[in-house]
Amino acid sequence: MVDAGVVYIGKKPTMNYVLAVVTHFNDGSREVIVKARGRSISRAVDVAEIVRGRFIPDAEVRDVRIATEKLASEDGPATSVSSIEIVLSK
Amino acid sequence: MVDAGVVYIGKKPTMNYVLAVVTHFNDGSREVIVKARGRSISRAVDVAEIVRGRFIPDAEVRDVRIATEKLASEDGPATSVSSIEIVLSK
Repeated sequence: MVDAGVVYIGKKPTMNYVLAVVTHFNDGSREVIVKARGRSISRAVDVAEIVRGRFIPDAEVRDVRIATEKLASEDGPATSVSSIEIVLSK
Repeated sequence: MVDAGVVYIGKKPTMNYVLAVVTHFNDGSREVIVKARGRSISRAVDVAEIVRGRFIPDAEVRDVRIATEKLASEDGPATSVSSIEIVLSK
């Protein structure tokens, strides 16, 4: 049994990530953190809402944190990208 | 003087919305709520982060709420869309 899981949201279909979150909870996680950057932020919110609405009704959004991350690039200055962390717990 | 402002994020350039939020604060708002739905959610996070990082350093993210909204359509069933509300205050 693990206490917390983390799911990073990328460009795959939304339901892939929903399944990953649900699997974490079913494996015994009490908390799953959904993380995303940039354009994937919208998908992270979709994932959290679908998990709560359709699969794990007793999961609640315990915290939503937004931030800015600096991405180092090989040439030129670092670029900034927005990020989100949605903490789901049950 | 007004106490709270609301900025709805759509498909315009990000800086348009940043300017709208900054204007609310400069007009005396203590709190500005940035709202978005669907694909615009990522842009809402960008707007909040740019306002805090570049324009109003003493603004803080007081709350981030995510939800699901039902959109009624003229024909066929209602569709669901994720939404976000970011509460900035100073």
